[in-house]
Amino acid sequence: MAEIATNHAVDIKDGAEDETSSISVSILQKFFAEVFGTYFIILAGCGSVTVNLNSDKTVTFPGISITWGLVVMVMVYSLGHISGAHFNSAVTIAHATTGRFPLRQVPAYIVAHVLGSILACVTLKLLFIGKHDNFVGTSPAGSEIQAFVIEFIITFYLMFVVCGVATDSRAIGELAGIAVGSTVLLNVLFAGPITGASMNPARSLGPAIFWNHYKGLWIYILAPILGAIAGAWLYKGISITHKPLREITRSGSFLKSLGRK
Amino acid sequence: MAEIATNHAVDIKDGAEDETSSISVSILQKFFAEVFGTYFIILAGCGSVTVNLNSDKTVTFPGISITWGLVVMVMVYSLGHISGAHFNSAVTIAHATTGRFPLRQVPAYIVAHVLGSILACVTLKLLFIGKHDNFVGTSPAGSEIQAFVIEFIITFYLMFVVCGVATDSRAIGELAGIAVGSTVLLNVLFAGPITGASMNPARSLGPAIFWNHYKGLWIYILAPILGAIAGAWLYKGISITHKPLREITRSGSFLKSLGRK
Amino acid sequence: MAEIATNHAVDIKDGAEDETSSISVSILQKFFAEVFGTYFIILAGCGSVTVNLNSDKTVTFPGISITWGLVVMVMVYSLGHISGAHFNSAVTIAHATTGRFPLRQVPAYIVAHVLGSILACVTLKLLFIGKHDNFVGTSPAGSEIQAFVIEFIITFYLMFVVCGVATDSRAIGELAGIAVGSTVLLNVLFAGPITGASMNPARSLGPAIFWNHYKGLWIYILAPILGAIAGAWLYKGISITHKPLREITRSGSFLKSLGRK
Amino acid sequence: MAEIATNHAVDIKDGAEDETSSISVSILQKFFAEVFGTYFIILAGCGSVTVNLNSDKTVTFPGISITWGLVVMVMVYSLGHISGAHFNSAVTIAHATTGRFPLRQVPAYIVAHVLGSILACVTLKLLFIGKHDNFVGTSPAGSEIQAFVIEFIITFYLMFVVCGVATDSRAIGELAGIAVGSTVLLNVLFAGPITGASMNPARSLGPAIFWNHYKGLWIYILAPILGAIAGAWLYKGISITHKPLREITRSGSFLKSLGRK
Repeated sequence: MAEIATNHAVDIKDGAEDETSSISVSILQKFFAEVFGTYFIILAGCGSVTVNLNSDKTVTFPGISITWGLVVMVMVYSLGHISGAHFNSAVTIAHATTGRFPLRQVPAYIVAHVLGSILACVTLKLLFIGKHDNFVGTSPAGSEIQAFVIEFIITFYLMFVVCGVATDSRAIGELAGIAVGSTVLLNVLFAGPITGASMNPARSLGPAIFWNHYKGLWIYILAPILGAIAGAWLYKGISITHKPLREITRSGSFLKSLGRK
Repeated sequence: MAEIATNHAVDIKDGAEDETSSISVSILQKFFAEVFGTYFIILAGCGSVTVNLNSDKTVTFPGISITWGLVVMVMVYSLGHISGAHFNSAVTIAHATTGRFPLRQVPAYIVAHVLGSILACVTLKLLFIGKHDNFVGTSPAGSEIQAFVIEFIITFYLMFVVCGVATDSRAIGELAGIAVGSTVLLNVLFAGPITGASMNPARSLGPAIFWNHYKGLWIYILAPILGAIAGAWLYKGISITHKPLREITRSGSFLKSLGRK
Repeated sequence: MAEIATNHAVDIKDGAEDETSSISVSILQKFFAEVFGTYFIILAGCGSVTVNLNSDKTVTFPGISITWGLVVMVMVYSLGHISGAHFNSAVTIAHATTGRFPLRQVPAYIVAHVLGSILACVTLKLLFIGKHDNFVGTSPAGSEIQAFVIEFIITFYLMFVVCGVATDSRAIGELAGIAVGSTVLLNVLFAGPITGASMNPARSLGPAIFWNHYKGLWIYILAPILGAIAGAWLYKGISITHKPLREITRSGSFLKSLGRK
Repeated sequence: MAEIATNHAVDIKDGAEDETSSISVSILQKFFAEVFGTYFIILAGCGSVTVNLNSDKTVTFPGISITWGLVVMVMVYSLGHISGAHFNSAVTIAHATTGRFPLRQVPAYIVAHVLGSILACVTLKLLFIGKHDNFVGTSPAGSEIQAFVIEFIITFYLMFVVCGVATDSRAIGELAGIAVGSTVLLNVLFAGPITGASMNPARSLGPAIFWNHYKGLWIYILAPILGAIAGAWLYKGISITHKPLREITRSGSFLKSLGRK
């Protein structure tokens, strides 16, 4: 933590795209924003699983999926302008590989995500003592290779959407949260029963550490990271251009082919 | 009520941020807007609980949660520009502690919320005479301490989101309702079966008074107020800066790290 | 129909707020837009009820409610700029009483709504010959007075939301559809099992005529019209001011109390 | 594929509305964007059907519908500015008939859609070897004529919405995805149990080829194409005007009749 605070001054010099923001929002504020955001996402998402078990399945599986999607959405809108709203170490690492996030801040963000995840598990455990306080982490329902491929694909598309909605400058503040939250929601809906739809190493690591349950954990660390990196680079390839993307968005085929009378 | 009307002229002088709006929208209009908004929120939300009991659980629990979330959202969009769309005494009190709402108007708003809540209960009772016109208030399904902690946390995050989406000036009119309504929806989905997910002293007080059912009521008054105050102050701490926040939003890490090619 | 076409030229002179639009969008285009919109709303909404009966309740009641809400939303976005997207005779009549819609066009709109509604019933009947092609209209599950009050209240708030989101000029194109569709969705969710949640005389009149089933029809004609008129006038009262509302929205208490640092 | 790449230079000259965009986004990028988008839509949508069968119907039918709707929405937001986000050969063909899409690019888009659809089926088959890896294509639950009419109508309205939201210039980037995704969601909800709610020849062709199951396939090729063409032309007729539509949107009946005080 001390290291994080002292890194702050250095970031201004070597964090390529962080100059303006580091002056006004310190790395400590970003760190806490990531902890708080991850904490509530894991608390609400895993909480809905625990509550569903304790209340005769009244929440239902679609209800659990909606909880995951909406909590990501509202945290993106509440904290996006402070920390960039990653809440997901795979997203942080993938952004770092394409140069959109300063490499030096990666460790702090990963610590924030794992810390938020563990704290949420502690809270859930304390709240449901003596009840069904089952393991709320993720483990494969089928084979490990099936889980690996599914986690890779869903994180790949999550990252793809993150990059896709963020390049259209008009869409950022307004649609990033809806699009990213909806991707989480739909991924949980279709992949949840098979892999738990983690898409996030920290989301799986927290419960694994707290419940001491490491079966298949490597899948949920490796597959999301590789998937997110692949998604970020593929988007880069598919959208590469000699003009700034904003201009394309305005004059591009979408507007032209659809918006014209 | 007479006091409210006469307070109006005074507000212009001592209500720091209320000068312009007090001239055009009177406190009486705000008062009625809060009554009408709270009335419909409680009527639809508690109504869906009653109707579910009277129609063989056809609404389902996720359906009840969606009703709560959407009714808050539409009332924020319909009345936000008139009264600020609190509909929740905990939000009013928390805003007053951080100086975002004039202290003098707090009592009028609390009266409006409790009045709206009681009127909705009267309506429901009259509509379902002889049917399952059960108590539609909130009481803990488990221990009181569990209910207290959960109500504290969910109101904390509700307030956090209210502050978070309101600081980004671009987001206000367009996203405040969606983000706040979604937070209510997800909080009801995961906390509803345990505490009733009140987040609002007036929402619990109305049915308690009308059905004369005060078990655990103190939890639903104290926990939301403390949670909302904590959320408002924590957001203040996490987002403190020397620049106006609008500028950060434009130049901050979110746009820089995500929106850049 | 001939009358509608010839009325067109007259509208330009006596339809107070219709001068510009009448020149560019003819009343005939508006008429067809209202027929097409109402047709698809009734077809999808009532269709989901019929399909649910024919497929072992797989759509579920929340699924039916979501269909109603979303179809209203998408029709508002697709046809709003052509006809104003009423699709509901109660809304048309209420707008006419407050002077926001030219009185002379009211009959054409009502004919359009009833025509769209009947055509949708014909389509459904033909599509489900020999299957459960039950009456898809509305009739009270409980007493007539209960149904009357509920239809009055839900149409009252539907109209209130229509007026509320439409007065904030920034919100119109972007949020009107979401807010109005969400209101329909939530009203169907909580009032559907009791009254069918019509909120629309034409929605009830079409199936009544086609299936020759008039029990309680008067409720679904009278209550929505009275509710919508009350909602429109109450909104007028609650939002009355000496400044144009746009200005209030910008400088009003919502922005001031929430958006300020 | 070679043909696609060489067509590129030609497009600039004869593709009427494609001049600016062809320079910055090559046809190859568009092709891959359509493949990737269609791939994920089919994978998530059909995957949710397969997963539902393999997990004791925990996803539920509304959950499957939500998956289809959201995946279309997020792909529109992620890829709309690159390829126009068709993902549907019926939409591509219909746009070509009204001159909004260059005829020469139609074959490449159709190949992209079918390719994406087949690749998604291969992925699903490999992921669920030994499990319920049932045919995820579409076939009529009732008569062929019933399926034909329903597919025609739902694709008709899908195309109508695509044209409707795209003509309001303010709505494009922000609402196109929500409106189009919602239309898919509601169409699946009410037509899914009867026809499978394809609305897309490629969505039906991929599984048909892969599972060698061609029963009723002609319906899912012909009805969506005819429906989309009819929807595109009807919208053209209903919205025809001598002024640019943007101006109408600003001064038209919607703003005038609703937005005025």
